[in-house]
Amino acid sequence: MNPTLDRLRTRLAQVVDLRRVNSLLFWDQQTMMPAAGAAARGEHRATLDRLAHELFVADETGRMLDELESYAETLDYDSDDASLIRVVRADYEKARRVPAELRAEMTRAASEGLRAWMGAKAESDFAAFLPALERNVELRRRYIDCFDGYDEPYDVLLDDYERGMKTAEVRAIFEEVKHALVPLIREAADRDADDDFLRGSFPVERQEAIGREVIEAFGFRPDSWRLDHTPHPFAGGAAIDDIRITTHYRERDLDSFFATMHEYGHGLYEHQVARELERTPLGSGVSLGVHESQSRMWENLVGRSLPFWRFFYGRLQAAFPEQLGDVELERFYRAVNRVHPSLIRIHADEVTYNLHIILRFELEQDIVNGRVELRDLAQVWGERMDEYLGLEVPDDARGVLQDMHWAGGQIGYFSTYSLGNVMSVQIWERVLEDVPDLVEGFERGEFAPLREWLGENLHRHGRKYRPQELLERAVGRTIDPAPYLRYLREKHGTGALTA
Amino acid sequence: MNPTLDRLRTRLAQVVDLRRVNSLLFWDQQTMMPAAGAAARGEHRATLDRLAHELFVADETGRMLDELESYAETLDYDSDDASLIRVVRADYEKARRVPAELRAEMTRAASEGLRAWMGAKAESDFAAFLPALERNVELRRRYIDCFDGYDEPYDVLLDDYERGMKTAEVRAIFEEVKHALVPLIREAADRDADDDFLRGSFPVERQEAIGREVIEAFGFRPDSWRLDHTPHPFAGGAAIDDIRITTHYRERDLDSFFATMHEYGHGLYEHQVARELERTPLGSGVSLGVHESQSRMWENLVGRSLPFWRFFYGRLQAAFPEQLGDVELERFYRAVNRVHPSLIRIHADEVTYNLHIILRFELEQDIVNGRVELRDLAQVWGERMDEYLGLEVPDDARGVLQDMHWAGGQIGYFSTYSLGNVMSVQIWERVLEDVPDLVEGFERGEFAPLREWLGENLHRHGRKYRPQELLERAVGRTIDPAPYLRYLREKHGTGALTA
Repeated sequence: MNPTLDRLRTRLAQVVDLRRVNSLLFWDQQTMMPAAGAAARGEHRATLDRLAHELFVADETGRMLDELESYAETLDYDSDDASLIRVVRADYEKARRVPAELRAEMTRAASEGLRAWMGAKAESDFAAFLPALERNVELRRRYIDCFDGYDEPYDVLLDDYERGMKTAEVRAIFEEVKHALVPLIREAADRDADDDFLRGSFPVERQEAIGREVIEAFGFRPDSWRLDHTPHPFAGGAAIDDIRITTHYRERDLDSFFATMHEYGHGLYEHQVARELERTPLGSGVSLGVHESQSRMWENLVGRSLPFWRFFYGRLQAAFPEQLGDVELERFYRAVNRVHPSLIRIHADEVTYNLHIILRFELEQDIVNGRVELRDLAQVWGERMDEYLGLEVPDDARGVLQDMHWAGGQIGYFSTYSLGNVMSVQIWERVLEDVPDLVEGFERGEFAPLREWLGENLHRHGRKYRPQELLERAVGRTIDPAPYLRYLREKHGTGALTA
Repeated sequence: MNPTLDRLRTRLAQVVDLRRVNSLLFWDQQTMMPAAGAAARGEHRATLDRLAHELFVADETGRMLDELESYAETLDYDSDDASLIRVVRADYEKARRVPAELRAEMTRAASEGLRAWMGAKAESDFAAFLPALERNVELRRRYIDCFDGYDEPYDVLLDDYERGMKTAEVRAIFEEVKHALVPLIREAADRDADDDFLRGSFPVERQEAIGREVIEAFGFRPDSWRLDHTPHPFAGGAAIDDIRITTHYRERDLDSFFATMHEYGHGLYEHQVARELERTPLGSGVSLGVHESQSRMWENLVGRSLPFWRFFYGRLQAAFPEQLGDVELERFYRAVNRVHPSLIRIHADEVTYNLHIILRFELEQDIVNGRVELRDLAQVWGERMDEYLGLEVPDDARGVLQDMHWAGGQIGYFSTYSLGNVMSVQIWERVLEDVPDLVEGFERGEFAPLREWLGENLHRHGRKYRPQELLERAVGRTIDPAPYLRYLREKHGTGALTA
């Protein structure tokens, strides 16, 4: 063992511990904390964040990385040590470029932005949110100025969520997706809608029980996972063996069922990272896009597939006999796959969902490049919703104010949702090559082969490789929308969706 | 504002944040964490503990304290600033005396001790625990060696839990208590026992509901408190407005009801510390003894009093009509105050409880002074249980292995339980002087006067004063067993306990 590496690992373990604890504090805040604890919680989280950051960006970290350069050259590229030095060097250089004051200002503006957004959304009043948004955008511009060597300014923001991805690449992918989806949505929307039975009364306790049942079939183990309620579902946790997923139940529909499978996908990724990477900066999922490929896979490729429902539909009917007792499998399957333009991203179907993302991705670039004035944002939002989905936006709450991302300063984040969709099918096709009877297994409730393939080929690597490097290793090539579009056409095109 | 004090406060706020978060991690571990998360949790807690300690004992802290000395002299003794400088100086000088390596060894030995104890207790095998206990005792002896200026070595340990209290003082108090209680227990034990109805079947959900009802009557507010299940009840939390109390339910008895009131007392103390002291080392309860005076007050002086039961008994009967429907108030009151020697400290009645403590206090001194060999401890335990309570100890699990304190290196802790009992009645008598109709109020469910008196006279001061200094300010004199013994005699002596 190299003694400098040993010292570096000790320091990084503390950084990671502080970050993990901070993420547990977030979980606690969303699920357990009494409301009045919020002020102290904000201080506690800020302290952990600051201490982790100071430890990480200290000159000493850089000196150790410098000292380790020649050692790293003697190591196999794939080794944990070489990967650690390589990835930490990249993280360090990014982190060092941002002055502590700017970082603190961004954190404060994000927190104030979220507060302003909550109020503005409740009142459906974009103007009330505008000053906070302007502040966030101004700070992001200053953040971009800390960097150089990018092709276009938006690259800097994107890189925070999807390391190494360029705006131009995403733009090309999204152009292809957009052109394929617009006619597909038109075809699908022409079909009869028959999903009234998905709205009604689904008692929350039964939703929770059936949600737990499905993820236990997938691989949720109570000795190392938790499932809790929260207003805005997320997956988090404190460690590989301490995964916390959350979901939101509404009596009037079954959305929680799909949301729970979605969060299971995120949780499984974190749960299957190699144990050797625990307490290192490599010990978590590599990017939001790859993460989303995992959550979407369990939610859509598994959870909205006919083989899965052949296995599970009887149980769902038994949980909700009044609602589903008379609904045949095929009809149910068509209903949960209905394509129908709607206003709210998080409730959109798997096809139209991407247009919600593309709209935001384009707007974000327009904002960063100054092509759209922030004060016009609500109006431009309305115009594009009409153009892409043929919908009129009735108010700001169901329009530009629906998501919290921009309020928290997260500009550049949205595209990863659709990048995840795209990658999910590339990975899926590759799993099917290696495990030809994968889907037949679902009909018998067998999910271990999928879980294990993902663990072996994706999850265990944590952050060792850049996202596209990981994808190329796992499926043989970098991101490519063709498989995803083929999948959507086959599933949702004319004549499809029969059982 | 003094700029050095400003810098000191900033540093201390981080130390306190780390400690508060650590205590929340403990809460999470006991109530929420999936079992497999334990290993990572240990690392996370060790990191927070180490970082808090390093920040606190840094030379820089000492330099700031030195710089502040002349400033402190200009301040009113009672001011928050003077108190902060005074208390932090004392904490700092204690903390600096202990080398980092010894501290780390003690932490490790405590963690290994707890593991060994759990195994040994399950097997009821003291010999299996002996090596870990020897290690803990050896380290505590080395810890004592870090200090000087004490009257006897045990003073050093006691001071960690009850700052400023001397072994000789405790010994004198406990001698008085012991001599008063031995005949009292004999008298009480001669009376007929009529409490069979307290054992049976009390459904856990109803215990939880009624426990919540009683502490809500006391002042538990869900917007700033939580109540959860745990195997070993404790009170904790992250902030003044984020109090977490826990309790343990057993179907076969109603102990949880009293345990919940007990933890409420601890929680209320932390909840009523002055908000100005939040995020400073003064912002929590001052000692274990004073804390216990608060928990015992709500559990025993309120919760086992006749006026309280005049208010609440109807509700309890309604919750458990099969068990209590035919039991009259007076009979119930006598039963929950039954004095009866028993083997397990945590289930002992309020009178015999003190002999469990005195036994441990005496044994601890014998251990530290080498008058008892550790390998003989189980045997000596048995002899003293026979001497003090007339009981034969059937096995180690119900004897020397019943408590976890020594396993975790906490030697010197036990006496604070009885010191708390003693102080609770001194405080109680003083409250009665100020609020003469206090007890009549209980019959109408009015607990705010007690809560407010405690807040104003004890709780709000946090750690500003040493424990005995605080007591003297609140009740007019330092610790004195006379009121407590008078209370016990009046309540449990011959002819007492009638409604």
